[in-house]
Amino acid sequence: MNVRHILEQKGQEVVTISVRHTLAEATRLLAERRIGAVVVAGPAGEVLGILSERDIVRALARGAEALQAPVADHMTEKVITCTPETAVPDLMEEMTRGRFRHLPVVVGGRLVGIVSIGDVVKHRLAEIEAETNAMREYIATA
Amino acid sequence: MNVRHILEQKGQEVVTISVRHTLAEATRLLAERRIGAVVVAGPAGEVLGILSERDIVRALARGAEALQAPVADHMTEKVITCTPETAVPDLMEEMTRGRFRHLPVVVGGRLVGIVSIGDVVKHRLAEIEAETNAMREYIATA
Repeated sequence: MNVRHILEQKGQEVVTISVRHTLAEATRLLAERRIGAVVVAGPAGEVLGILSERDIVRALARGAEALQAPVADHMTEKVITCTPETAVPDLMEEMTRGRFRHLPVVVGGRLVGIVSIGDVVKHRLAEIEAETNAMREYIATA
Repeated sequence: MNVRHILEQKGQEVVTISVRHTLAEATRLLAERRIGAVVVAGPAGEVLGILSERDIVRALARGAEALQAPVADHMTEKVITCTPETAVPDLMEEMTRGRFRHLPVVVGGRLVGIVSIGDVVKHRLAEIEAETNAMREYIATA
């Protein structure tokens, strides 16, 4: 099972923002779209960073004025990305090691989706259900 | 596998805050302790709510003045809890259904830990490794 399976379920839409938007604008965007992170994209759609709820809370811990700062000042710049071929266990390892909850999915420099830790858990639940059904069927026909 | 296994790995410590602290104080607490949510506890240690990075970002989307509001105004009051006996798949289902990333662990009204979606994924990784090792051993001794 790989990232492609997850994207097939959730779709390829990725919410992006530019480096010049403010943290206040990013905060409203996250709330409106009911998401936990936005990809910070350049004019050609290239990934420049990622800004998560965690980045915003960390910035605000140093003062409310951070809300007026540009996204560029508080985004995570070292973005770990994955591809549709990344195996789900490898994705889980990246998330655990880096304590990330979102990984952009990139193919040839182009953003094709985003996977969250919530998607990973949802995918695991579907896998457990499939395993259980397969076992039931096996027992019924044995 | 159940919540007890996860707590054995991560310990029982839970960071709490009172309803009268401000969101600014909660924000600093989350950043200092490097956590994503605090349990809002009453004087007897009872769970009154939970305040996550998401709750804070949602509150701030309506204006920076939210930082001065008490935790009581923006916490999630309907807290879904689990027990050490909750099976990990059931925990994953609660997290997926409610889009929660943290569940307090409660025994007889007393808070004994907190499990995050990150803990769930870390636990799943350990499980995959154990399965792989068992299979290797089986093949080597077959």
